[in-house]
Amino acid sequence: MLIRWGHTQVICAVTCEENVPRWMKEQNVEGGWLTAEYSMLPYSTLTRKSRDISRGKLDGRSQEIQRLIGRSLRSVVDLKRLNGKTFYVDCDVLQADGGTRTASITGSYVALKLAVARLLAEEKIQEDPVIKSVAAVSVGVINGIPMLDLNYEEDSTAEVDMNLVMTSAGEFCELQGTGERITFSPNDLQKMLDLGREGITKLNQLQEQILAD
Amino acid sequence: MLIRWGHTQVICAVTCEENVPRWMKEQNVEGGWLTAEYSMLPYSTLTRKSRDISRGKLDGRSQEIQRLIGRSLRSVVDLKRLNGKTFYVDCDVLQADGGTRTASITGSYVALKLAVARLLAEEKIQEDPVIKSVAAVSVGVINGIPMLDLNYEEDSTAEVDMNLVMTSAGEFCELQGTGERITFSPNDLQKMLDLGREGITKLNQLQEQILAD
Amino acid sequence: MLIRWGHTQVICAVTCEENVPRWMKEQNVEGGWLTAEYSMLPYSTLTRKSRDISRGKLDGRSQEIQRLIGRSLRSVVDLKRLNGKTFYVDCDVLQADGGTRTASITGSYVALKLAVARLLAEEKIQEDPVIKSVAAVSVGVINGIPMLDLNYEEDSTAEVDMNLVMTSAGEFCELQGTGERITFSPNDLQKMLDLGREGITKLNQLQEQILAD
Amino acid sequence: MLIRWGHTQVICAVTCEENVPRWMKEQNVEGGWLTAEYSMLPYSTLTRKSRDISRGKLDGRSQEIQRLIGRSLRSVVDLKRLNGKTFYVDCDVLQADGGTRTASITGSYVALKLAVARLLAEEKIQEDPVIKSVAAVSVGVINGIPMLDLNYEEDSTAEVDMNLVMTSAGEFCELQGTGERITFSPNDLQKMLDLGREGITKLNQLQEQILAD
Amino acid sequence: MLIRWGHTQVICAVTCEENVPRWMKEQNVEGGWLTAEYSMLPYSTLTRKSRDISRGKLDGRSQEIQRLIGRSLRSVVDLKRLNGKTFYVDCDVLQADGGTRTASITGSYVALKLAVARLLAEEKIQEDPVIKSVAAVSVGVINGIPMLDLNYEEDSTAEVDMNLVMTSAGEFCELQGTGERITFSPNDLQKMLDLGREGITKLNQLQEQILAD
Amino acid sequence: MLIRWGHTQVICAVTCEENVPRWMKEQNVEGGWLTAEYSMLPYSTLTRKSRDISRGKLDGRSQEIQRLIGRSLRSVVDLKRLNGKTFYVDCDVLQADGGTRTASITGSYVALKLAVARLLAEEKIQEDPVIKSVAAVSVGVINGIPMLDLNYEEDSTAEVDMNLVMTSAGEFCELQGTGERITFSPNDLQKMLDLGREGITKLNQLQEQILAD
Repeated sequence: MLIRWGHTQVICAVTCEENVPRWMKEQNVEGGWLTAEYSMLPYSTLTRKSRDISRGKLDGRSQEIQRLIGRSLRSVVDLKRLNGKTFYVDCDVLQADGGTRTASITGSYVALKLAVARLLAEEKIQEDPVIKSVAAVSVGVINGIPMLDLNYEEDSTAEVDMNLVMTSAGEFCELQGTGERITFSPNDLQKMLDLGREGITKLNQLQEQILAD
Repeated sequence: MLIRWGHTQVICAVTCEENVPRWMKEQNVEGGWLTAEYSMLPYSTLTRKSRDISRGKLDGRSQEIQRLIGRSLRSVVDLKRLNGKTFYVDCDVLQADGGTRTASITGSYVALKLAVARLLAEEKIQEDPVIKSVAAVSVGVINGIPMLDLNYEEDSTAEVDMNLVMTSAGEFCELQGTGERITFSPNDLQKMLDLGREGITKLNQLQEQILAD
Repeated sequence: MLIRWGHTQVICAVTCEENVPRWMKEQNVEGGWLTAEYSMLPYSTLTRKSRDISRGKLDGRSQEIQRLIGRSLRSVVDLKRLNGKTFYVDCDVLQADGGTRTASITGSYVALKLAVARLLAEEKIQEDPVIKSVAAVSVGVINGIPMLDLNYEEDSTAEVDMNLVMTSAGEFCELQGTGERITFSPNDLQKMLDLGREGITKLNQLQEQILAD
Repeated sequence: MLIRWGHTQVICAVTCEENVPRWMKEQNVEGGWLTAEYSMLPYSTLTRKSRDISRGKLDGRSQEIQRLIGRSLRSVVDLKRLNGKTFYVDCDVLQADGGTRTASITGSYVALKLAVARLLAEEKIQEDPVIKSVAAVSVGVINGIPMLDLNYEEDSTAEVDMNLVMTSAGEFCELQGTGERITFSPNDLQKMLDLGREGITKLNQLQEQILAD
Repeated sequence: MLIRWGHTQVICAVTCEENVPRWMKEQNVEGGWLTAEYSMLPYSTLTRKSRDISRGKLDGRSQEIQRLIGRSLRSVVDLKRLNGKTFYVDCDVLQADGGTRTASITGSYVALKLAVARLLAEEKIQEDPVIKSVAAVSVGVINGIPMLDLNYEEDSTAEVDMNLVMTSAGEFCELQGTGERITFSPNDLQKMLDLGREGITKLNQLQEQILAD
Repeated sequence: MLIRWGHTQVICAVTCEENVPRWMKEQNVEGGWLTAEYSMLPYSTLTRKSRDISRGKLDGRSQEIQRLIGRSLRSVVDLKRLNGKTFYVDCDVLQADGGTRTASITGSYVALKLAVARLLAEEKIQEDPVIKSVAAVSVGVINGIPMLDLNYEEDSTAEVDMNLVMTSAGEFCELQGTGERITFSPNDLQKMLDLGREGITKLNQLQEQILAD
C-alpha cells in the first residue's frame, strides 16, 4: 500500500515467508519473526540520492530506521502465533518531505493487518497475531515552541526531534527524543508527549477507516 | 581513560585532528566536528564476539550506539569553537556486562574534558568548547518494577529499556525508550524519568571528582 | 511515471544533474551523459526477492539490463546538446510479470521526453537533445512458433528470447537474441524481426498519445 | 589452451568438478551445469588495467561477457549428460586487441571438446555432452560499410558492433547488435548477418583442424 | 593480559571455543586449532589510525602479523591434545612504539599458558598442549651496527629488520629478516642471531616469573 | 615473460606508469616506486581455485607473497632514479607445483631488466635503476634432512620451509624461515643457508643467460 503523509509518499509492503532467521533455529526459539527494511528511492529527494548498492553499504540512518520499524511492529505482534513464519515489512520512500520513519510505521501497521487478513482467509494462520494497534508521530520544538509535526522536514530548523510510537490504548512502544546540538527541558518533554498523544489518536482513526473499507 | 561500570569496562579515548568531514567543506559549514566510534573487543563477551572486520561490516547495533554517543556529546559542545578541528571519540569495550552505551557516553565526557584541558594548555584552542556536562544512565522495567539499572545485562529479563542522556542541569540531550516486544504506560515512563534523574546526579558527581584530581 | 505492461509495473524516473562522469572530465569529452539504474523491489516477485544491498552486490542480470537501458536511450540522444549535464534514468520494478527490460526502455523514453520538456520550459537547455523516438519489445519462440511477446514470463517456456530496441523509423538501436539452451534458424530470426516491427509501431503510438496529453 | 586472434591472446581453460550450483540442488534440477568466468589480466591492455580485486568488484562489461560465454556454450551442450558435474570455463585475456569475447567463445569450444575427450577416455562420462559446434564473430559498420571484423578494436571507430554466436549448421545461439550512440537499418543488419556467416564457417574449419591434431 | 614493552602496550587475550575451522572438518583432520587476530586500536599511534572496518578491509601488514603470531604459537603447541577445540589469540595494540609483533608473540605465550592452566583446573583438557616455550625479539642494523632492538620504532632509521621467534631451548620457530631497500651480509646475519639469542633468554626469564606469580 | 620452474609456470610482467602512490605525493617523497601483485589463476591448481574476486577479497597468503615480491625487488632498485614513475610487477601463476613465490621473484627480476632496457632505449629513463641482481630459492628440511628445494610442493611433507632472497654478491634481501608446527636448530639453519647460496648462484647464471639473448 502507498501511504501519503503531506508530500511524503512511502510504499509499505508486507510479505510472509515460511522460514525464520538462522539465530532462531540455532537457539531453538519457538514462534516466528518480523523484520523490516527501509530504503529511499533515488528520486525521493530534491537532489537525486544515490542507491545503497552504489555506495556499497546501507547508511547508518537507514539502518536505524529499519530497526525502529521492526521493533515497533514486533511490540504489537504475538510472535508465538507466527509459528515458523517471518513477516518482511518493506518500506520504500517514493517522495521524502519529512516524517518518513513515522509514516513507514503507521502505514506498515495497515499493510500488516491486510496481509494477516489474507493469511487468515487462506487459513495459513489460525489466529490474528496482531494484538494491539500501533502508529507513530514526530513532535518537535521549533523556535522554542513544541509542535506536532506531521509535515516536518528532517533537516529543517527544528531544534528537538522526538518520535513517538504508541498503541491506540496510549501505551508507548518506542520513544526517541534527540536535541541534535541542543538540549531540552522536562517541561518541553511533557508538552511534546501531550501533542504526540493527540496525533496518535487521529492516526488510529485513519488506520481504522482504511481497514474498514 | 578506562571507565568501570559494575563489571563493564570501556576504554574512552579522544583524539583531536586538524581536519573536518568532507560534507562540511563542501557545504562551507564553519566550525569543527565531533564524531564517535564504538566497538566491542572480541574478548568482551562470555562467548568470543567475532571482529567487525571478520564479518565485513559494522553491525546495526554498533552503528546506532556510535551515532548516539556522537549526538550526545555534540549536544554539549559549541562546535563553532573548534574551528577546523574534529574530535574523534573512540569507545572500545574491554568487558561487557550491561550498560556499555551509557558507560561510553559518561566516560567519553571525562575523556573529552581532559583532551580539551590539554589543548587549552598547549594553546591549540582558545576557549573551552564544552559548554555543559553530560552523563547517561539506563533505566528499565523488570518484573513490572521500574528500576535504575546500572548493572543491567542488555539481553536480560528487562521488559523495557530506556537510555537517558542528560546534562547536570537536568536537561535532556537524548531519550530513548523501547519496549522490545512489550509496551509501557505513561506512568512507567514517569517513574523511569525520576529514577534516571537521580542516577545522572550521582554520575555528575563522580565525573567532577575525577576531573578535579 | 509508472508504466503498466500487462501485470508488469515499472516506475521510470528521469533526473537531470549538473555534472558529468569522471571519465568525461579526465578525457575532456564534450557534452553530457545519460546513465540508467534498474532494480527489482523486493515485493515485485511472487517469492520476495532480497534487496541488492542485502546480497552486497548488484546481480549480473540487473547490471546487464541497466547497461542496455542506458545504451538504448543514448542511441536516440544527441549528448552534445546536454553540455555538462547527466540524465539519470531510474527504473524500479514494482511488479514483475515478464518484459521488465522492454517496459523500462519504453517507459523511460516517455519520462525522458517529459523531463526534457520541463528543462526546455525552464530554459535550462536550449534545444531538445532527443533526436529520435525509441521503444522496445521482446519476441520469442514458444513451442516452435515465433510470437510477439508483450506479456512474456521471463523464466517461462520460451525457447528463444529476443529483445528489439527500435526507433519509430524502423532503425535498430539494439538487437539481442538468445536461445538459452537452444539454437534458432535464420528463418525464425526473420519472423521475429517482422513481429517485433509491428509491436514497436503500436508502442510508438501509445507513447505519442501519452506525450500529447 | 591459448587462442590467438590477430594480436588478441586469450587463455581458455575448462575444468570439470563433481558438484552443481546450489540452486540446482535446491530446486532438484537434474543434470549438470556449465559456467564461465572472464577476466582481463592487468598487462593485457596498453595502459595497465587494475585487477578486479583491487577495484573490489567485477565490472559490468566483464560480467556481461562471462554470462554470454556461458550461455553460448550451454546452448550446444546437453546438460542432462553431465549428471552432477559442472564445467568451469575460464577465459583470461593475455593481450587485448579487439574481439576478446568472440575469441573466448571460439577458443572455449575447443578447450571444452578437449576436456570432454579426456573425461570420456577416463570413463568419467559415458557420452559426449557437446551436441553441436559453436563459434563467434563480431561484425561491424565502419564508415557506413558493414565489414567482418576479426581484428576489431572495441573502442574503435566502429559505429555498430554485432556479435554472432552460431553453430556449424548455421543456427544462431546468440545475436547481439548494438549501435552505441547510433542506429542501424534492416539492410545493414542483413549484410552483417551474411558476413558473419562466412566468418563462422572459416572458424569452424580452424576448430576442426585443431581438434583433429 | 597487558604486555608493556618500552612504551608499547598490547592486550593479549586467549579464548577457547568448542569448534574447529571448517577446513578441518571437511578434511577430517583430528585435533584442534589455534588462530590469532591482531589489530591496532585507533589511538595507538601518534596520528589516529582509522579502524580496519572504516577502511573496509584488514591491511596487508596486520594480516601478515596475525599469521605470524598464529604460526609461532602453533609451533609450540601439540594440536592433537586440543581435540575439537580452537584457541583464539587476540592481540590489540593500545600503544605502538615499535616491536608490536614481537611483544604480541611474547605476551600471547603467557596468556596462552594462563588459559591452559584454567582449562586444566576445570578439567576441560587433560594434558597441557603447550610443549615448548616461545618468545620473540626483533634485531636490526642501525647505522651499520647490528643491535638488539627491544624499543624499536618500525618506521625508524633501521636499515635491516629481523624478527626472531625462538624457544627457550634455542630452537627457531620463525626467522624473518628484511632489508627494506637495502641488503645485508652473512656476517650481519650472524651478529643479529647472536644478539637475538641473548634477548630471547631474558624474555624467557620474565615469562617464567609472571607465570610463577 | 613466462618462467618455468619444474612444473610451476608463472607469468611475470612489468609495466611502467607515470604516477606514484598517493602516500608519496602527500609526504613529498622524491623518486619513484615499485609494487607487485600476485595471483593464482583458477586452473593453476589440481582442484580449481576460485578467483579472488569471487571470494571478494585477496587471501592472506597472496597478500604476503605480493608484499614479499615488492620488497625483494625494491631492495635492488634505486628508487631515486625512477622519478615520478611506478613499476607494476604482475605475477600470475598458470600452474602451481611448489615454489611459486621464489619463481615469481626470480622471473620478475628478468622481466624488470627487460622493461628497463626498453625504457632506456626509448630514453624514458636516463640511468639503469636496477643496481644489483636478485634471485630467490626455497630450502627445506624433509625427513630431518635439509635440502635445496626447487620443485618443492608447498603443502608437502616439508617440516621447515625457508625462502632466501639474495643478490649475486651473496647479500641477503630477505630471509624467511618457518617451521609450521615444528622448530629447527641453528645447525639446520646453517645447512639451509649454504644450500640456498648454491641455488642462488645457479639461478643468477640462468638469469644472465636469458638477458644476454
